[in-house]
Amino acid sequence: MTTWKRIDETTVWLSILAQPAQNLRDFLAPHRIAERTIAAGGSLSYSYAAMDVSDEAIDLLATASRELDLIGQYRDTVSGKTMNIGEKRMVLHHCARGTPCGPVVREGRDYRAFYEGERLRAATFADRVRTGEIVGSTGRRFERVVQIGIGGSDLGPRALYLALELWAREQGLLALEASFISNVDPDDANGILAKLDPETSLFILVSKSGTTLETLANEALVRSWLTRSGTVDAARHIVAVTSETSPLAGNPGYLDSFYIDDYIGGRYSATSAVGGVILSIALGPQTFTALLEGAAEADTLALEPEIRKNAALLDAMLGVYQRNVLGRPAVAVLPYSQALSRFPAHLQQLDMESNGKSVDRNGKPLPLPSGPVVFGEPGTNGQHSFYQLLHQGTDIVPLQFIGFRNNQSAFDPEYNGATSRRTLNANLAAQIVAFALGKDDADSNKRFYGGRPSTLLVADELNPRSLGALLAHYENKVMFQGFAWNINSFDQEGVQLGKKLTSTVLSASGPSDPALAAYAKLLGAL
Amino acid sequence: MTTWKRIDETTVWLSILAQPAQNLRDFLAPHRIAERTIAAGGSLSYSYAAMDVSDEAIDLLATASRELDLIGQYRDTVSGKTMNIGEKRMVLHHCARGTPCGPVVREGRDYRAFYEGERLRAATFADRVRTGEIVGSTGRRFERVVQIGIGGSDLGPRALYLALELWAREQGLLALEASFISNVDPDDANGILAKLDPETSLFILVSKSGTTLETLANEALVRSWLTRSGTVDAARHIVAVTSETSPLAGNPGYLDSFYIDDYIGGRYSATSAVGGVILSIALGPQTFTALLEGAAEADTLALEPEIRKNAALLDAMLGVYQRNVLGRPAVAVLPYSQALSRFPAHLQQLDMESNGKSVDRNGKPLPLPSGPVVFGEPGTNGQHSFYQLLHQGTDIVPLQFIGFRNNQSAFDPEYNGATSRRTLNANLAAQIVAFALGKDDADSNKRFYGGRPSTLLVADELNPRSLGALLAHYENKVMFQGFAWNINSFDQEGVQLGKKLTSTVLSASGPSDPALAAYAKLLGAL
Repeated sequence: MTTWKRIDETTVWLSILAQPAQNLRDFLAPHRIAERTIAAGGSLSYSYAAMDVSDEAIDLLATASRELDLIGQYRDTVSGKTMNIGEKRMVLHHCARGTPCGPVVREGRDYRAFYEGERLRAATFADRVRTGEIVGSTGRRFERVVQIGIGGSDLGPRALYLALELWAREQGLLALEASFISNVDPDDANGILAKLDPETSLFILVSKSGTTLETLANEALVRSWLTRSGTVDAARHIVAVTSETSPLAGNPGYLDSFYIDDYIGGRYSATSAVGGVILSIALGPQTFTALLEGAAEADTLALEPEIRKNAALLDAMLGVYQRNVLGRPAVAVLPYSQALSRFPAHLQQLDMESNGKSVDRNGKPLPLPSGPVVFGEPGTNGQHSFYQLLHQGTDIVPLQFIGFRNNQSAFDPEYNGATSRRTLNANLAAQIVAFALGKDDADSNKRFYGGRPSTLLVADELNPRSLGALLAHYENKVMFQGFAWNINSFDQEGVQLGKKLTSTVLSASGPSDPALAAYAKLLGAL
Repeated sequence: MTTWKRIDETTVWLSILAQPAQNLRDFLAPHRIAERTIAAGGSLSYSYAAMDVSDEAIDLLATASRELDLIGQYRDTVSGKTMNIGEKRMVLHHCARGTPCGPVVREGRDYRAFYEGERLRAATFADRVRTGEIVGSTGRRFERVVQIGIGGSDLGPRALYLALELWAREQGLLALEASFISNVDPDDANGILAKLDPETSLFILVSKSGTTLETLANEALVRSWLTRSGTVDAARHIVAVTSETSPLAGNPGYLDSFYIDDYIGGRYSATSAVGGVILSIALGPQTFTALLEGAAEADTLALEPEIRKNAALLDAMLGVYQRNVLGRPAVAVLPYSQALSRFPAHLQQLDMESNGKSVDRNGKPLPLPSGPVVFGEPGTNGQHSFYQLLHQGTDIVPLQFIGFRNNQSAFDPEYNGATSRRTLNANLAAQIVAFALGKDDADSNKRFYGGRPSTLLVADELNPRSLGALLAHYENKVMFQGFAWNINSFDQEGVQLGKKLTSTVLSASGPSDPALAAYAKLLGAL
């Protein structure tokens, strides 16, 4: 078995710990903004000029990255090594969108061919729904598509759909509007269904194992809703996305089935059939293909060994510096794009579920903090909300801005001499500088300390390609951080205990733990 | 001028600091769950049995509360004392929903009568829209109502609308669906407008000052959209909610105007006309009235001097203990109710904008951390996402659960022997216990340390009354924490610098700061 090291076990760790934060008032200069803006794939640029980190510190982080062989670990990942060690699985979400290191073949299966084959099947199916060749059981065309899934089967696909809904509408590619049912709270499904017609609704049931309690409960509710009219045949209104070994696979209760496998973790599955089926149906197969191409570009870029040319690796290591050297426990993701309204929620899952761990891959307790709290909302909205704390609070929160030079929509009349787009981006530029530089004031209540570091990912437009690269950038960032902390970013043992206790509450004998029984009673669940 | 103290200046502070966290494995017992569950108004109960705080620590926090006269400061607030000291304003959001301490009269105006008068005017207007007495300029009935506002004019009203949309639908009270336009990103407005018909759309423009850049830019976009068909008279499709001194007041460009004033801060304005007009139109005036009644109940309860009978005060002081004694910098808000999907975003604003401050009311730098990072998503969704970090991450995040014993919707078929509601609440009970108690395992990767504290707010149903109480509970909690830290929770000086720098980017001469110019150029905003 390979023995991996943690970053605090590298020869340069004590030197890294000794690197002080830079004073951004002196440090943030135009020449540095030019030097510290690099390509990130899919036409994205990554700018880290407003990070309070010295060039010396970056050099040391690069040395640590080499000692830890972060690029080698990434190569191992995309080449099909068993990187999800606890669950003894390969980690192949990159493979679903390209082959950055050549084919992955195991036990006779070529995985790239498998994922690509499912993508093509979904594309064909999607085209047939979009053209009206496949219709509902009463002969009416499908008008709405609804994903039933939770966690990775919900957050990523939802964030990507919302990111491209208006873009696709403007391009004439939006054939069916999409909705999402996730929560086992029946008010979620009922709230969505109240706006739908069973005859024109197509559902996509997504559960890799085919046993996700919430998703199956929602399926039961939806089937009951579909059939209560007496006219609709539910089996012709639901497709399944699942693994080939699940009870949902090849089941005549579904119109069709599309497959993934255990080598694509839930939170990394948006570029597999989990996201692909709904995005292809709603936005067109070519939209989904372009998204995969953008992601593959970022994946290829992440192989670059020089840290200053590898945006994902650099972003990862700057995050480690913020977390472990400067002691900052949270990160805010702030997209200046309303279409990215749910992208922070997806990143919250991606990051916190991957790296919210206390044990390294050798089974040892971590002696340093790992994954931070991740949160965020679109700007400028956040400026009128939690930015107050970010500017003047007692803690420093590193910021990750995302921006685009152009709209998705064409209609943008001027107000007060500026288009809304220009106003939006003027705000973004102003915030980066305000956070970094601050402003003194004789009235201490009006004083801005500055020294709040930020990064910026920027592209011309939020489109399938830049969105794919954006998604892959963050996936790769999180992966590199996990490697640096020597944790398994690909399992989620922390979800198990709650599941077990839930099943005891719902069992015939009820929970044996008296505290659990008392809470279940208080909540009316016994 | 009154001199207020900070909690670290009380005689018991050193004793409070010495209070260790309790080991929840020993501490969480059924008798304590019963003892530590108290009324919180509007049929809500507040349970703090899973908080790792001793009775001795609570006694000391109660002593500190008395020394700081937190209840007296609250009485001063609702009685019309100038509690927003920097801006020299009264703080009258409580007054908009009741008179917990009697009338507030200043310079001849009875403020309760003023707010109540505006509520009644809005109710009458809403009824006339709902019955079709007031119609659009082409004679068609209004079918959709859209709020244009940002920050407090968006997050609170949006969270409350979403919380009651399905409830109102099931009650037959949902007359018009509501939407919200907030971001200056034109893709926000265009994404909403793409689904609307100008002839049947009614807009509510909300800006207290009448000068909010984002809101006026969105108004310009909407007016242009309304009139480009050539058939619609925009002035008959927009109402204003503003202050009497704003340029929008009594302006013939609007169908009608409803008034608030500077004594109701944006993030506290959901129970004023800012929330009242849209909620009354969409959900019915009686729905809004019931929400105010629930809020007023929680406000009255918050006058209780005994900390163990005052849920808002207790919640506030337990939060201070978590933040300042146990050193926990973030709080997660976890509603087990899909209808509360945007409630955490509202609380994030409420808390972080109110208490994200570094200077006390005497102008001194705070020697201790103030407001935490607040984030959250509905359960069970979060269980499949960031809960991994909450269970097994290296930092402890105190949790605030919210639950309801019953659905808003009636349709809830059984799956696997349980309704979805029962499954939802079994999950909630299981999570509270899993976080508190943890579970040992020989495999360190599967070990749950436990000791993760949580509170629970629970009611029979999420309806206008319990929602009003829930909102007021958090407003009052945040207020008491601000008093305890001796900060002004009612201003937001931290938003000013960004506004100023934005205006220099948009000015004819451009920004003088070279870094700002470089970023503005990178973003295409020059």
